[in-house]
Amino acid sequence: MRKVAVVGIGMTKFGVAEKTAMELFAEAATDAIDDAGITTKDIEALFFSNVLGFFSEGMGNPAPFAAAELGLQDIPSTRFEGACATGSVAIRDAYMWVASGFYDVVLVAGTERVCNMGTPFATRTFAMGHDSYYEQFTGLTFPGVFAMIAHLYSKKYGIPLQKLKEQMALVAVKNHANALLNPKAHFHKKITVEDVLNSVMICDPLQLYDCCPFSDGAAAIILASEEKAKKMTDTPIYIAGAGQSSAGPLFRQKDITITQARITSSKMAYKQAKVEPKDIDIVELHNCFTIAEIVATEALGFFNFGEGGKAVEEGLTQIGGKIPVNPSGGLKAKGHPIGATGIAQAVEIVEQLRGEAGKRQVDAEIGMTDTLGGDLATICNIIYRR
Amino acid sequence: MRKVAVVGIGMTKFGVAEKTAMELFAEAATDAIDDAGITTKDIEALFFSNVLGFFSEGMGNPAPFAAAELGLQDIPSTRFEGACATGSVAIRDAYMWVASGFYDVVLVAGTERVCNMGTPFATRTFAMGHDSYYEQFTGLTFPGVFAMIAHLYSKKYGIPLQKLKEQMALVAVKNHANALLNPKAHFHKKITVEDVLNSVMICDPLQLYDCCPFSDGAAAIILASEEKAKKMTDTPIYIAGAGQSSAGPLFRQKDITITQARITSSKMAYKQAKVEPKDIDIVELHNCFTIAEIVATEALGFFNFGEGGKAVEEGLTQIGGKIPVNPSGGLKAKGHPIGATGIAQAVEIVEQLRGEAGKRQVDAEIGMTDTLGGDLATICNIIYRR
Repeated sequence: MRKVAVVGIGMTKFGVAEKTAMELFAEAATDAIDDAGITTKDIEALFFSNVLGFFSEGMGNPAPFAAAELGLQDIPSTRFEGACATGSVAIRDAYMWVASGFYDVVLVAGTERVCNMGTPFATRTFAMGHDSYYEQFTGLTFPGVFAMIAHLYSKKYGIPLQKLKEQMALVAVKNHANALLNPKAHFHKKITVEDVLNSVMICDPLQLYDCCPFSDGAAAIILASEEKAKKMTDTPIYIAGAGQSSAGPLFRQKDITITQARITSSKMAYKQAKVEPKDIDIVELHNCFTIAEIVATEALGFFNFGEGGKAVEEGLTQIGGKIPVNPSGGLKAKGHPIGATGIAQAVEIVEQLRGEAGKRQVDAEIGMTDTLGGDLATICNIIYRR
Repeated sequence: MRKVAVVGIGMTKFGVAEKTAMELFAEAATDAIDDAGITTKDIEALFFSNVLGFFSEGMGNPAPFAAAELGLQDIPSTRFEGACATGSVAIRDAYMWVASGFYDVVLVAGTERVCNMGTPFATRTFAMGHDSYYEQFTGLTFPGVFAMIAHLYSKKYGIPLQKLKEQMALVAVKNHANALLNPKAHFHKKITVEDVLNSVMICDPLQLYDCCPFSDGAAAIILASEEKAKKMTDTPIYIAGAGQSSAGPLFRQKDITITQARITSSKMAYKQAKVEPKDIDIVELHNCFTIAEIVATEALGFFNFGEGGKAVEEGLTQIGGKIPVNPSGGLKAKGHPIGATGIAQAVEIVEQLRGEAGKRQVDAEIGMTDTLGGDLATICNIIYRR
């Protein structure tokens, strides 16, 4: 298996866009192609990430149309769908095609337009990520899942709910502060713990500022074999390890505060990269809700179980802390255009490892992404290094 | 790159099922696992094909739930969506993961429940395979596309429409005759040219019997590395070559009677397999409409352009003919459960190459599949050999 590097990155501003998902895709993809210093002719295949296109665009099988949007008729183009984890699943798959020697240069891109659906319809549609035979009829939505996790976490570790809510609020405050340093973030708004605790209740104990937004946006990266990468750039960022795992519906999961699939997936990535959690200098992880960030830092091995909230209080996850978590602002404040999210995480890690992250720059050699899809059902982790 | 073989196959009866897509999947997958003589513990990853699950099952991100249905929590599971070509795209992707040495044994499965949607809603939903920005508003559906192809074909090659309709009718008659020999086919009904020409008009010149049905069903195969395969079975069927290509929306395609993406894709597969069209002993190809079978046999190189209809008249595509086309009955008569179709094609070719196809057995060493997705937009070809 050959070494594979990211040689180009592109990303639209996240937020409410007056563009179609295809237009957003084309913007991010052409930026990545420019950044790599290549032309579309160099691209051998497209790995395409999109989740709700059937609903927001009325379009199935979007991958070949995306390729054609760049003038790339007649190349293989494949669409992946793994709920919020889709982008990272597409990267991992593309990585294998280059590592195996089959392709030298490929484009991985994710796009999503969802704001045009409106939050109620988007939330209802998105709840199809839950098992339709056993769970959906209960009225479960994703805020409900993470609210349950917060309650269970509070009980399991004996952390009073009000105390946990303050820790969760600090997660939101930190991510909004980071997003202020990120020109492409959905939110540019400084918030306080009081703002979070006074915001409207969404699903007890989650309040408005505990929740990430639906965003429109796209992100793209170019992957190349080591040999090609060295000719293209002085700062290739290598994929050192990749993991993926899955779980059944919630009712089949033993302990939803743990996310077993994340433990399996991250161990797979750590093993391949020959590193341990302590070696990771920076992580972009799946903070769709504030409690999601806390439990993810534990399952990934950065903090002991039950101590993720304390770590936030101690500032360990801030830029400059022990392990900067979501310097981009994460899903919570950078935004969450579903199919683009995993790829946007990669874009942030690559910018950071290149030393091009501007005001939010972290001193980092090894970075990691963590993306969760659906019912805690799909997890994908990728480790990057300079 | 290592050699990869199919070591297990499974398939439900196609038709109108009183089962969910997940139940159909489980039936086909367990049959494939039994056929391979392995247990679920041997399966390292699931490559999952499903197209309309959002609508017919109300379920997004179905891959991890499918894995869990077999008790396979904690393995990577990835969903592909490329309209009707999805199953073959999933096989090609899984092939690379095994060929590269990353996995030794994987499950590729496709499932679809669509009859519960009813034909009008299914047709409308499925029309999202057309470009939503430039084509759908015209009212275009898939019968419309293939009706246009028939008209263009008639004009381009100077074949009077009535003559072409008779050739198309012979395609339907042949596929229904083949399906009578296939216990798992959707239709078990002998038809005549007159039956076709007297059937209800769907979209001129396509009549009812020119069209494939929507079917429920599932199919699954187990792929293994050569080393593992030889320990599992005396009749491993190897993947000798795989190709995939794409095209933009119809309005960006030069000549929709040709399907350029099919020419590119099949050439990729022929080149890798080091064979030519004349070396193919048997083909399962994408005959969603009778005219689709005629144009596919030409683009794949079996007959000259404009002579596919004549070949049918001469019996060259029958079992026992020069190149038996769709001995299973194909989409037209075996049925078309969208996400399962590409994998069911593989199941048929493997049965044939093993010599296990019973009354529809063809003398064959090298077989090929051809699957088309959406707006003639995704094509995938795979070549198998004993």
